[in-house]
Amino acid sequence: MVNYIFEIVGTIAFAFSGIKVASQSRYDVFGGFVLAFCVAVGGGTVRDCMLGLPPFWTTSSVYFICTIVAMVIFFALKHGSHLIPNKVNKTIFLTADTIGLALFTIAGTQKAYLNGMPVWVSIGMGCITGVLGGVIRDVFAGLKPTIFSEDFYATASVIGAAVYFAFPYIGFSAEVSSVSGMFTIVILRFLAVRYKWHLPMV
Amino acid sequence: MVNYIFEIVGTIAFAFSGIKVASQSRYDVFGGFVLAFCVAVGGGTVRDCMLGLPPFWTTSSVYFICTIVAMVIFFALKHGSHLIPNKVNKTIFLTADTIGLALFTIAGTQKAYLNGMPVWVSIGMGCITGVLGGVIRDVFAGLKPTIFSEDFYATASVIGAAVYFAFPYIGFSAEVSSVSGMFTIVILRFLAVRYKWHLPMV
Amino acid sequence: MVNYIFEIVGTIAFAFSGIKVASQSRYDVFGGFVLAFCVAVGGGTVRDCMLGLPPFWTTSSVYFICTIVAMVIFFALKHGSHLIPNKVNKTIFLTADTIGLALFTIAGTQKAYLNGMPVWVSIGMGCITGVLGGVIRDVFAGLKPTIFSEDFYATASVIGAAVYFAFPYIGFSAEVSSVSGMFTIVILRFLAVRYKWHLPMV
Repeated sequence: MVNYIFEIVGTIAFAFSGIKVASQSRYDVFGGFVLAFCVAVGGGTVRDCMLGLPPFWTTSSVYFICTIVAMVIFFALKHGSHLIPNKVNKTIFLTADTIGLALFTIAGTQKAYLNGMPVWVSIGMGCITGVLGGVIRDVFAGLKPTIFSEDFYATASVIGAAVYFAFPYIGFSAEVSSVSGMFTIVILRFLAVRYKWHLPMV
Repeated sequence: MVNYIFEIVGTIAFAFSGIKVASQSRYDVFGGFVLAFCVAVGGGTVRDCMLGLPPFWTTSSVYFICTIVAMVIFFALKHGSHLIPNKVNKTIFLTADTIGLALFTIAGTQKAYLNGMPVWVSIGMGCITGVLGGVIRDVFAGLKPTIFSEDFYATASVIGAAVYFAFPYIGFSAEVSSVSGMFTIVILRFLAVRYKWHLPMV
Repeated sequence: MVNYIFEIVGTIAFAFSGIKVASQSRYDVFGGFVLAFCVAVGGGTVRDCMLGLPPFWTTSSVYFICTIVAMVIFFALKHGSHLIPNKVNKTIFLTADTIGLALFTIAGTQKAYLNGMPVWVSIGMGCITGVLGGVIRDVFAGLKPTIFSEDFYATASVIGAAVYFAFPYIGFSAEVSSVSGMFTIVILRFLAVRYKWHLPMV
């Protein structure tokens, strides 16, 4: 149940980030919807193709509805944006996007592992699930993908997935491990943004 | 039979649009061929991967031959371009591209539905089949994809796929519905280009 | 055994080219690693998805380790780059990249053919295996893909794959044909770079 709520929040957040980029790239309303949907389901679709499974979003219309909800929120915020301080706006977006990354990463890791993948492949597929949507968003908008250079994005995703596998070894239950993995991602990203952590450049 | 002719025309049209972009991006002849083939089969390949089927173009060499035909037409037009008024050139291209979009959308919708997908997923996959080739074309050429902001492109595709599903409910046969879906896409696009229809920007 | 060594060299070379582009695009260390891995396995992953097989890199961690080795080499070269003449550096890179292209092309062609694809599809899939990693590299780095316009890249790949199929007809064994295909690619590329061969532009 908690997982389900997180998944909805994550999908809405990812879709929202797609619409935001679409708006900056001067897409029309329908193009914005398509981009938002691609961001929300892109990573998981590639994961499912690699696992030989049907894409997860074909089995439930909840991801479709989440994209519509994200559009409604976007238009509400757009017309009320003068009422909300810019900083609050940014924090809302960062929080939602980070929850999306955290949940999609752990859900993707779990799904790959349950489908027989070894641990390191599962971590990689979790990372793909979490970050590929953002890459697709930037490429489709004609931008250079930011997640490879941005504050700890993919790095936090991989560390969180590793925590998810490490915690059962030190005696934690599957539920605790999965929540710990998500929290690790959320906390790492907030710390990275707050204290301007950067990995050294290659 | 009519479907088959449409499919060939659509494939040639899509391949042709790929070569045109390749020419503008100063690709060499072989690069142009590869790009043209990617545009022609890209959308359907992603659809087939999601459906768990082998890519449609692996079962028949007609798509390969269509790409060669498109290249021959391109070179003929290029060397004879001073003979054809620019406006006629544009109209030929728009017509072919629109027929391609119409046919690929309905064929994709049909294939997804026959493989057990629910209606809304089938419409989505029809849209992917029709428009993703153009997205791949623009991304591979280092351009910002235009289909999300261009005159009614993806929108017409989705409305046509919806017509294809709606018409049997009001008593039309499968054949009539499928042709009606295609006509809807063609007419919508021509009207949109003629009267400069635009969706509001996001 | 020789195949296996070639495969490792090819993977390292492709991963290395990914890190080089990541460095030019100012990625962080982890982003560079991800890009390198995508370049090394991208083409083969798409091929395996189209063949309905699990991605090859999920069955062995050797590709993962090769990517780490490529990073180590990159940092060693970076800090010692003042010791190596620029021209030697370029030759090393070209050689490794070309061996990667040659091996990945023939391995991809073989795998597609063994999975029941007709000859021309196998050649196409071999080409995809060899060149798509480089396309992903450029798109993810926000650059225009170079392989479509660069000296004989995709062209050499297709000609080599064709040699691989043609040689058994004139009496050569499978091993000789496969090595001949690879040599064809290597020699064509070196000649193209040396004598500045270009296909005419489209």
